[in-house]
Amino acid sequence: MAKNIKTRAEDYSQWYLDVIKAAQLADYAPVRGCMVIRPEGFAIWEAMQRDLDRRFKETGHVNAYFPLLIPMSFMTKEAQHVEGFAMECAVVTHHKLEHGAQGLRAAGELEEPYIIRPTSETVIGHMYAQWVQSYRDLPVLINQWANVMRWELRTRLFLRTSEFLWQEGHTAHETEQEAQAETLRMLDVYADFAEQFLALPVVKGPKTDAEKFPGAVTTYAIEALMQDGKALQAGTSHNLGQNFAKAFDIKFLGRDQKQQHVWTTSWGVSTRLIGALIMAHSDDDGLVLPPRVAPNLVAIVPIFKSDEDKAKVAAFIDRIVASLCGEDELAAAKSRLSSGDITRYFFDKVTGQSILVDWRDNRPGDKQFHWEQRGVPFRFEVGPKDVDSGSVVVKRRFDRAKEVVEASKLTPKHLRTELEDVQRLMFEKALAFRDANTQRAASYDELKQQLEKGGFVRAFFQPDREAEAKIKEETKATVRCLPFDAQSKTGKCIYSGKEGAPEVLFAVAY
Amino acid sequence: MAKNIKTRAEDYSQWYLDVIKAAQLADYAPVRGCMVIRPEGFAIWEAMQRDLDRRFKETGHVNAYFPLLIPMSFMTKEAQHVEGFAMECAVVTHHKLEHGAQGLRAAGELEEPYIIRPTSETVIGHMYAQWVQSYRDLPVLINQWANVMRWELRTRLFLRTSEFLWQEGHTAHETEQEAQAETLRMLDVYADFAEQFLALPVVKGPKTDAEKFPGAVTTYAIEALMQDGKALQAGTSHNLGQNFAKAFDIKFLGRDQKQQHVWTTSWGVSTRLIGALIMAHSDDDGLVLPPRVAPNLVAIVPIFKSDEDKAKVAAFIDRIVASLCGEDELAAAKSRLSSGDITRYFFDKVTGQSILVDWRDNRPGDKQFHWEQRGVPFRFEVGPKDVDSGSVVVKRRFDRAKEVVEASKLTPKHLRTELEDVQRLMFEKALAFRDANTQRAASYDELKQQLEKGGFVRAFFQPDREAEAKIKEETKATVRCLPFDAQSKTGKCIYSGKEGAPEVLFAVAY
Repeated sequence: MAKNIKTRAEDYSQWYLDVIKAAQLADYAPVRGCMVIRPEGFAIWEAMQRDLDRRFKETGHVNAYFPLLIPMSFMTKEAQHVEGFAMECAVVTHHKLEHGAQGLRAAGELEEPYIIRPTSETVIGHMYAQWVQSYRDLPVLINQWANVMRWELRTRLFLRTSEFLWQEGHTAHETEQEAQAETLRMLDVYADFAEQFLALPVVKGPKTDAEKFPGAVTTYAIEALMQDGKALQAGTSHNLGQNFAKAFDIKFLGRDQKQQHVWTTSWGVSTRLIGALIMAHSDDDGLVLPPRVAPNLVAIVPIFKSDEDKAKVAAFIDRIVASLCGEDELAAAKSRLSSGDITRYFFDKVTGQSILVDWRDNRPGDKQFHWEQRGVPFRFEVGPKDVDSGSVVVKRRFDRAKEVVEASKLTPKHLRTELEDVQRLMFEKALAFRDANTQRAASYDELKQQLEKGGFVRAFFQPDREAEAKIKEETKATVRCLPFDAQSKTGKCIYSGKEGAPEVLFAVAY
Repeated sequence: MAKNIKTRAEDYSQWYLDVIKAAQLADYAPVRGCMVIRPEGFAIWEAMQRDLDRRFKETGHVNAYFPLLIPMSFMTKEAQHVEGFAMECAVVTHHKLEHGAQGLRAAGELEEPYIIRPTSETVIGHMYAQWVQSYRDLPVLINQWANVMRWELRTRLFLRTSEFLWQEGHTAHETEQEAQAETLRMLDVYADFAEQFLALPVVKGPKTDAEKFPGAVTTYAIEALMQDGKALQAGTSHNLGQNFAKAFDIKFLGRDQKQQHVWTTSWGVSTRLIGALIMAHSDDDGLVLPPRVAPNLVAIVPIFKSDEDKAKVAAFIDRIVASLCGEDELAAAKSRLSSGDITRYFFDKVTGQSILVDWRDNRPGDKQFHWEQRGVPFRFEVGPKDVDSGSVVVKRRFDRAKEVVEASKLTPKHLRTELEDVQRLMFEKALAFRDANTQRAASYDELKQQLEKGGFVRAFFQPDREAEAKIKEETKATVRCLPFDAQSKTGKCIYSGKEGAPEVLFAVAY
């Protein structure tokens, strides 16, 4: 057990922060509630971006960029929207600095303040009103990768920070049906991404009115279960109806030659997913990453005492690297700058996923420990004896399996197969955990008892703002969604006792 | 000549804005001096990002993310830096909105205001001071893709906007020599990118002290020539010496066991490059894009009058698309959402570069015109007669060459060769233009006369703040750089008359 990481059983919250620190994923910034995403953490976000962006484009979407600042008056145009965000807006009031008696001070007061976007429905609505004239201009299928800011008082790296990175899709459609189809299409894109890429099983379904996005008609979410039994909302897709279209007057001339408002959707996932990834898969020894999202696939740790051994091991490792990454990459990497004595070889030129060789002077045990805490899916250990036997000790991070493999077997195809195995096994493990931690409550008392144990609890419940507030007060739990997988079921509401209530998913959530 | 685009001769400034509007690259935002980068413009930025990011990673750099906001007090730590940026800082002073008598107002005043980053040397310096302890932690080789804000009073789409997108590299090194080598390495990366990817010939060299980055020891730049004879700084790489290391106390324990300050660099290019691209290559008919940066490589315009003809043409186009993009992509695209009746087929899955088929009801001439103004490198025209003859009319945007090509010849390899030809020809054309518009001045009078004609003017000149200010006042021109290609030359200064002055590049600049 790693001394720099508390165990999950001991202190789950501290474990989470320790894993992030040990893997150097992020730091708190010198700005209230904000974080710095360090290279190891940012590479995970880049992998997510690449895969999501591909999925967005394959479904016909394009990217664009809208301004960071939003005129304050825009916020008031949609009534629910302003109530949802007013308490957490960073406000820009001045446009220069001046030297005063007590040092620098803000100067050049603006006539109308701007807020830093907490989300961009308003300013995008304003632009769509100018771009859309006719049904021929529809659908508008735009996504934006951006930073947003929601001033948070209680923050937590990745999960809740004042500034975070995300993508926000904003589409406009000719009909209500098309907008609804788009909302569900993107929910499916997110679910598929979470399960296939992050190895994170999710439950899909609509939110209750109490939990929906400020300004939405319906919010759909994917909900994942963390190892401490808490739920995490991993992505949302909103059907905005004509709310923003009316607020920003986004109108078009229809096929019927009549002016009408468009139907809009928005959908987003954020760097919060990195938090989900950590909490779903990591263990008491630190980070564990599903191979598809891992920036570094293999860390090779050479073992040597003499210069002679080092040369012998180096030559052997060169052959392994050449087999896995190609002779060109072997040569290219030698002339590349590197930090410390760690050489990076690109295994996949498109994704940038790498194989590292750790030539630092540290003890081999320390180096093993180093890469273990960083969640690298495979570590290869190579000493002089391994060179003699033509083999490599392969350690699998996910389940600590250890195997001696003939060096000649280490081909790109072999490595890809091994990585895909781990990807599948990690998803299966997470799914088994979720199944083992999903209960069913037949009464409110049962719900309370089961929520104490943690995990998902399914129950029949008629969504209702007052009842939900009361349940949250008493149990800290909320309705995460009305699972699609139980859409046809109804039963007796555990709270009101009335028949015909839908099945919902309760959990205490992040 | 397009009626919606003024000619360059008539009104160059208006021509530039007209080209952007006709190609739907960007719009002004409802935020002072800010722009919205529309999908067609953003796809150009994505292409640039992809290529630059690859170059950064191939030279050993990694990406990270630092906070948008910078504590005001950080700005004062480097004296030149604060003077350089104080007049153009957006300042955040409050963290929520309240309903007041006159509507919403800023509330929750912050103890210390934050500024929106105009550049991130300060906050990154603060973090590096915590991350770097020993020479083993060096070099730090980090890049950030981000939005930044510099409050501008006179703005111009892409070239000068209050918010813009860019990348900023920030590296820290053990020695002065290493930092200098990095500064020049990244200048070379930019020059190579500009010439190979944007088909934009550039002159490399250091800036004078009067023109350097606030806080740098030396700033190096790549300078390009636009079609109106003005220069445009297309990228900068700064050797920051120990200025920021001392301001933020970034120290390490050296190999000599002594504490010392690191040596840092920073380097950046921005969405301003999109402006450069437009002004270097486009013509009176609109946008012209070098193929490597073009999101859409081919626009296919079907010609048909009857449904029967349409079906016949469609089947023929399907075969062309299948040959160029593959049968899988042909099938995939049919189920993809699309805006209007334009079908997008991915030609290159990695870059996302596409082939479009324009099935809209508009007249074929209008569709030709549409894609011409958007700078698509090739247009294919296919009518019933072309189907009968098994050929396609191929129109090349860059020089309006028109050719009838047998459909069977339209293979991916053929298209790639054609695209590379255009890429090369566009660079050669831009280079010939620059050569024809580069003059040499032997006296200050000559310099003045030549600057009136526009273009680059090379002259011997001893850089000097006062002299440069006077020259700028009299000619509007500045020293763009001291070209590396003339590094060994010296001569008599055209301003002071003293011998031993280096050769510099004068121009009126954007």
